Amino acid sequence: MSFEETLNLTMLADFYELTMANGYLEGGLENRIAYFDIFFRKIPDKGGFAIMAGVEQVIRYLDKLQFNEEDIAYLRSKELFSEKFLQYLSKFKFSCDVWMVPEGTPIFPHEPILTVRGPVIEAQFIETMLLLTINHQSLIATKANRIVRAAEGRPVMEFGSRRAQGYDGAIFGARASYIGGCVGTACTLAERDFNIPAFGTMAHSWVQMFPSELEAFRAYAQTYPYDCVFLVDTYNVLKSGVPNAIKIFDEELAPRGIRPKGIRLDSGDITYLSKQARKLLDRAGYPDCKIVASNSLDEYIIRELLVQGAKVDSFGVGERLITSKSEPVFGAVYKLAAIEEDGVMTPKIKISENVEKLTNPGFKQVWRFFDRETGKAIADVITLANEEIDESRPYELFDPSHTWKRKRVTNFHARKLLVPAYVKGKCVYDIPDLKTVRAYCQEQVDTLWDEVLRFENPHTYYVDLSKALWQLKEDLLAEYLIK
Amino acid sequence: MSFEETLNLTMLADFYELTMANGYLEGGLENRIAYFDIFFRKIPDKGGFAIMAGVEQVIRYLDKLQFNEEDIAYLRSKELFSEKFLQYLSKFKFSCDVWMVPEGTPIFPHEPILTVRGPVIEAQFIETMLLLTINHQSLIATKANRIVRAAEGRPVMEFGSRRAQGYDGAIFGARASYIGGCVGTACTLAERDFNIPAFGTMAHSWVQMFPSELEAFRAYAQTYPYDCVFLVDTYNVLKSGVPNAIKIFDEELAPRGIRPKGIRLDSGDITYLSKQARKLLDRAGYPDCKIVASNSLDEYIIRELLVQGAKVDSFGVGERLITSKSEPVFGAVYKLAAIEEDGVMTPKIKISENVEKLTNPGFKQVWRFFDRETGKAIADVITLANEEIDESRPYELFDPSHTWKRKRVTNFHARKLLVPAYVKGKCVYDIPDLKTVRAYCQEQVDTLWDEVLRFENPHTYYVDLSKALWQLKEDLLAEYLIK
Repeated sequence: MSFEETLNLTMLADFYELTMANGYLEGGLENRIAYFDIFFRKIPDKGGFAIMAGVEQVIRYLDKLQFNEEDIAYLRSKELFSEKFLQYLSKFKFSCDVWMVPEGTPIFPHEPILTVRGPVIEAQFIETMLLLTINHQSLIATKANRIVRAAEGRPVMEFGSRRAQGYDGAIFGARASYIGGCVGTACTLAERDFNIPAFGTMAHSWVQMFPSELEAFRAYAQTYPYDCVFLVDTYNVLKSGVPNAIKIFDEELAPRGIRPKGIRLDSGDITYLSKQARKLLDRAGYPDCKIVASNSLDEYIIRELLVQGAKVDSFGVGERLITSKSEPVFGAVYKLAAIEEDGVMTPKIKISENVEKLTNPGFKQVWRFFDRETGKAIADVITLANEEIDESRPYELFDPSHTWKRKRVTNFHARKLLVPAYVKGKCVYDIPDLKTVRAYCQEQVDTLWDEVLRFENPHTYYVDLSKALWQLKEDLLAEYLIK
Repeated sequence: MSFEETLNLTMLADFYELTMANGYLEGGLENRIAYFDIFFRKIPDKGGFAIMAGVEQVIRYLDKLQFNEEDIAYLRSKELFSEKFLQYLSKFKFSCDVWMVPEGTPIFPHEPILTVRGPVIEAQFIETMLLLTINHQSLIATKANRIVRAAEGRPVMEFGSRRAQGYDGAIFGARASYIGGCVGTACTLAERDFNIPAFGTMAHSWVQMFPSELEAFRAYAQTYPYDCVFLVDTYNVLKSGVPNAIKIFDEELAPRGIRPKGIRLDSGDITYLSKQARKLLDRAGYPDCKIVASNSLDEYIIRELLVQGAKVDSFGVGERLITSKSEPVFGAVYKLAAIEEDGVMTPKIKISENVEKLTNPGFKQVWRFFDRETGKAIADVITLANEEIDESRPYELFDPSHTWKRKRVTNFHARKLLVPAYVKGKCVYDIPDLKTVRAYCQEQVDTLWDEVLRFENPHTYYVDLSKALWQLKEDLLAEYLIK
């Protein structure tokens, strides 16, 4: 049984989801249909885009959603909920419709990345887990993608389990890192359960366990002749580590015609040490021996190392990836967009003194426009769900805040980003394998212009509203102001 | 079955723990005894101390440690490990000795907070999970304690599940927050499994679900007359939220003689709004109605609010607590301290070009010295494990880096911080209930001088070495330099 299969996460919900649920039932609102959107407002690290991740875990959660006897007994002991509600929970069966942006898709602020439609009690209850799952994995996938892009084609491995925030911080963090473009992880469980390649050879303690570094390397080479990546910084990289590694390559591998895999630098001045180590290895006849670096790295340090000409072939990235240290929160929110009674939909808007916190009302779709010539993404347009976009005619984009800013696009392909995941509680989403998700992510990131991919001052990708949605929003605002 | 009981975390290990383990077995080192210490080097947020947490989860992990058939089959498929090793794993039984600093204890850099002694394969293998568990919970307990101290006696609730880094980021984060001093959590599962009080009433969506704010509050009061905490910022706090709350208190609660519990502010200028709301509530005859604030808070903002005279009675703290946003990594490490062969112990030291990274060699104990008169903690002294401290005689403390700095202490009580947790693989640690851990934490933090508790430029608490340990370290360094 995989780690994930053992999880029962139904009760991982904010307590107010339950007080509200009981309140809706008591108030006779159990048949009220609600529409909720997940969206985020700010891209971590001031980047140009984020990566959608966690979709598969949302599905695993929804598919297993049910309250067992222990849950009911605990809730009853609170003496806060009606017996009718406890009965309701014991028969709870998820029946909502859900639309999601596929895992690995670049996503932008303010656009719905997941929409739930269904009975208000159900649609409200799942808020905490949906946010938690998507916030966590999107955060790490986005960070991983930044780090992988900084490495400019050199493999990046996720090495952060020991500094992760909890067990599935490590496990699903490894998963999200892989989606974002890492080639693998140090986390064994992530390979067993998700087929993410696991890497690792030795710690400093291995080297210390033997009378000398040379003996430690020799013992390793004798056990793993085809997998020698020696950690060379336990004593002194250039005076001891690299010379000893070369000696063992010469004595243990060369006679058997085996090429060494690499050496790893885990401390000190990586630029200087890697350049010197490269020279020593080349001179000794091992130009194909890779140099791995792994000391408190992130996208900024990797970029610096490469600018300085560090001779590093691959990177192991730990705490700054697995916690997204520079910005450890992905702030997606779950907001009411509409309600439906007797088949009549009423769009809802959340007003705030803070203009960025204004929500987009109604049941919506997100369209990504691609230029047919370049294949590049031009803009996203949020429309009402029942709008269609006619690719055969020019489409006028306009900035929802500065409506005089307009752009007419032709020769485009428009793709719906929100795809059906659940229909009346039944999963209709075909979960792709993780390798496919990772390849799709790479391919979609490649549709973005370089200006959006930048780390510093990226271009703000256009997320516009259709005329109909813009008008609806204006109307609701006017209505609110009259009140 | 609790969430925790369902977890099988044996395979949550860095892959190199397995390559090394197989290497030790192949190299005939399986009977080698190793001593590993966990310690950390830097206190998060430049604080004066950290809080030990995660001890109970370390025990749950060690007690369940075993490789099942699926694990073995997966490892076999890697074609990297010997059949002898896979056999070894399938019969794996933890047999180490473990000492730990009790959960809730203030801890300081460089002192061992957990020591493992046992066969090298076992002692090495558990590294990842021990670090992950202690790093995560100590991080959050330390942050929670800062936030709770900033609130100066006002209750602080942990509200961050939706922004946590993964499921047990939320669950064990709620647990660690409680140890650090929070009064409760929004996480329902944390109450079901750990008896941590769960709080929560309504979200903005509740208010939006009704035709008006007034009707939303009325419906809530009718369902929960004794638990009314109204969220008052959906439309306009002072013009709508608070007046509507008062109206419902008057109409629904007062006639039944029920006092309202509170109102919650979740946006805007908390200082200004809370002062004005307080006036409105007082004037309406509700001076006992509490004001809860919950918008992107942390210790710095809470302190600022209180300095500005905000009328807030309790705080709900979310993302900045559950991820320890300002410093999301607790960097504890797991280092070899000694090896033992045929009953002879050889202390080990890890040299580094970076002086802070030098380790303390040998099998050790940590003593905390308390002044018998004031009850305050004076200093910690790391000794060799077989040293005893005679309280009846003056003890000379000295700074291990600046040995001329000396201090003679008398009339002290010295307590061993590392207590036995496992003896030959058997747990001997009596796990206290969480309330007891929380009370112990509070009591122990109270033994620290105010200068250590400060947020800005706290006094560096003394962590000294015994003469014997200091001499051993000097000798090993000299020996290394001769080489």
